Amino acid sequence: MSDPVAPWAASGQLLLNSSAVLVATHVNPDGDAIGSLLALERVLRLLGKQTHPFCPSPVPAKFTFLPGHERISPAVPAWTPDLLVILDCSDRERLAHLNHEALYMENVAPGTSRFAPVRPGPGNPPGTGAFASIPSLNIDHHATNTRFATVNWVDPSMAATAEMLAGLVIGMGWPLDEAVATCLLTGLHTDSLGFRTATTQPRTLRLAADLMAAGASLTWIVEQLYDSKPRATLRIWGLALTALREEGPLVWTTVSREMLARAGADDEALNGIVGFMRSTADVEVAVLFSEQADGRVRVEFRSKGRVNVAEIAYRLGGGGHPPAAGCSLAGPLEAAISIALAEVRQSLSSSPIASRTE
Amino acid sequence: MSDPVAPWAASGQLLLNSSAVLVATHVNPDGDAIGSLLALERVLRLLGKQTHPFCPSPVPAKFTFLPGHERISPAVPAWTPDLLVILDCSDRERLAHLNHEALYMENVAPGTSRFAPVRPGPGNPPGTGAFASIPSLNIDHHATNTRFATVNWVDPSMAATAEMLAGLVIGMGWPLDEAVATCLLTGLHTDSLGFRTATTQPRTLRLAADLMAAGASLTWIVEQLYDSKPRATLRIWGLALTALREEGPLVWTTVSREMLARAGADDEALNGIVGFMRSTADVEVAVLFSEQADGRVRVEFRSKGRVNVAEIAYRLGGGGHPPAAGCSLAGPLEAAISIALAEVRQSLSSSPIASRTE
Repeated sequence: MSDPVAPWAASGQLLLNSSAVLVATHVNPDGDAIGSLLALERVLRLLGKQTHPFCPSPVPAKFTFLPGHERISPAVPAWTPDLLVILDCSDRERLAHLNHEALYMENVAPGTSRFAPVRPGPGNPPGTGAFASIPSLNIDHHATNTRFATVNWVDPSMAATAEMLAGLVIGMGWPLDEAVATCLLTGLHTDSLGFRTATTQPRTLRLAADLMAAGASLTWIVEQLYDSKPRATLRIWGLALTALREEGPLVWTTVSREMLARAGADDEALNGIVGFMRSTADVEVAVLFSEQADGRVRVEFRSKGRVNVAEIAYRLGGGGHPPAAGCSLAGPLEAAISIALAEVRQSLSSSPIASRTE
Repeated sequence: MSDPVAPWAASGQLLLNSSAVLVATHVNPDGDAIGSLLALERVLRLLGKQTHPFCPSPVPAKFTFLPGHERISPAVPAWTPDLLVILDCSDRERLAHLNHEALYMENVAPGTSRFAPVRPGPGNPPGTGAFASIPSLNIDHHATNTRFATVNWVDPSMAATAEMLAGLVIGMGWPLDEAVATCLLTGLHTDSLGFRTATTQPRTLRLAADLMAAGASLTWIVEQLYDSKPRATLRIWGLALTALREEGPLVWTTVSREMLARAGADDEALNGIVGFMRSTADVEVAVLFSEQADGRVRVEFRSKGRVNVAEIAYRLGGGGHPPAAGCSLAGPLEAAISIALAEVRQSLSSSPIASRTE
């Protein structure tokens, strides 16, 4: 059934040989994390396996249109898996408490959880948690993946983890029903920014076509993802763009708690503003400063490529990708703005005007 | 070479049999109009034919990244075509002066234009212009197409005229180089709103993949189309969204000449605002009123489907599609707002809350 030279061959075989699978994804899940999690968990169930979909964080409201989202749990199962599958997750730390759960293989009362929390530390070096005793499979498209599992299928050329899973499911001839296709297409669409990233290749669009042919409605998914913003989104965008500051190739704006309250908006309504700010012809770097409920300042950077904003974010204690990164700084807003913009100005002045990289 | 039962068979044969082709598209061209025009004109040139790409309007600045755009002309050629091809154009009126050009087949000095303007009127009924004496081919995906040509290939199930042309070029085995593929993918991407419309089908994505495989860079096209806005776009969006008015399922806003001047923006910077206003969860209809240089008011309607805004626009002297339409009203702004919103409120109150149509 499985092509031994296909990129998904080892993963497919490991999954086929398993019977009780804990499928996990990372904290603060995005559409690819949730879509991939739900798709693979459903396929494995359709194959007759016992499954448990795990995510350390609650499912964001905007992804609750996905079939099966209510099954996702931050708890570990009451049974012992024979395989851990970790999806879209570049390192073990992003699994939060799952990374530190230990599996007790003995002295466990029937029906109770065989996981118990274990604190990492000198007596618990890496490898003493669940990962020590259960085979694990790591499927991811992040270039920064630390290859922490027993079997690691990591392919940064892929637009999404969901793209890898679509290839796996189709390649293995596994069930691809409307629900699975909808979850995979959602992961593919969100992580490719609507088929816009450089990783979006002809094969990506053909897979998307296959998922549509399997029953996924692209129109419906897009409506759920992008046409269901809270009304207050319009108001906070107006306030944020009116507060725009411009300095040559650098633009930034600031959103205070007072502005959010005035608009009746929450932090999620800010999604997309900084990307929109970058989308102008002569902007190289866009920055959004938003005051958090605890007084800290969230800083989101976007770059067209001349400046590596991941390096800036990293220096400020955050992280991300070269064109899109972020960090959290101490307030008040003015102090955070001063610190972050100094870094950006420094990078802009030392970055040659050269060809753009993605 | 040509499959006689393929939808493009008759068009392909007509084009093959021609030797001097005037390829035309509509006034106020969008990405599908310009992309389709440049793609087919180039293919015909590569096939060794004499060609002339015609558009009554100048090419909008945002499409000048397309190869060959500088060849597009609002003038008629100095030679007599043996075929008129009209692309993405629902009726002859949208060809502007080309619709009224007459072809003089005799008494013309060599090298001079064989077209001369003819005013429509009692002595010039429809059919006396260029269309009277030259075979014409009408390729379009608008459901409202009036089928005005000798051969009409009209397919409203297609996401774009460029999608039809991609099928034609690939089906006929004609040259599909990087320039042709780039123009076609631009038409397909813009008219499908980034692969989001209900007409975006698996076959659409597979064609897009074929165009990428032929050399079109989706990432580059998207960057040209959407990441090169004038800086003033950010400012006018801020002003427009800050002026947002809300009334249950109806939202609207107003952009005066004074606001445009304050932002340093032109009318093109308003593109997308009304679609963004519609993209919120409980909005049914969004309307943008913008004051024009001549004091008239441009009205853009967007609907989620409960209200057919094309009907509203039509009653007010405009037109469009059920979810997206527009019209022009006499100023001042307050008068136009009052007239248009009365129509919208009437439609909202008489439209049942039912399933949405695209």
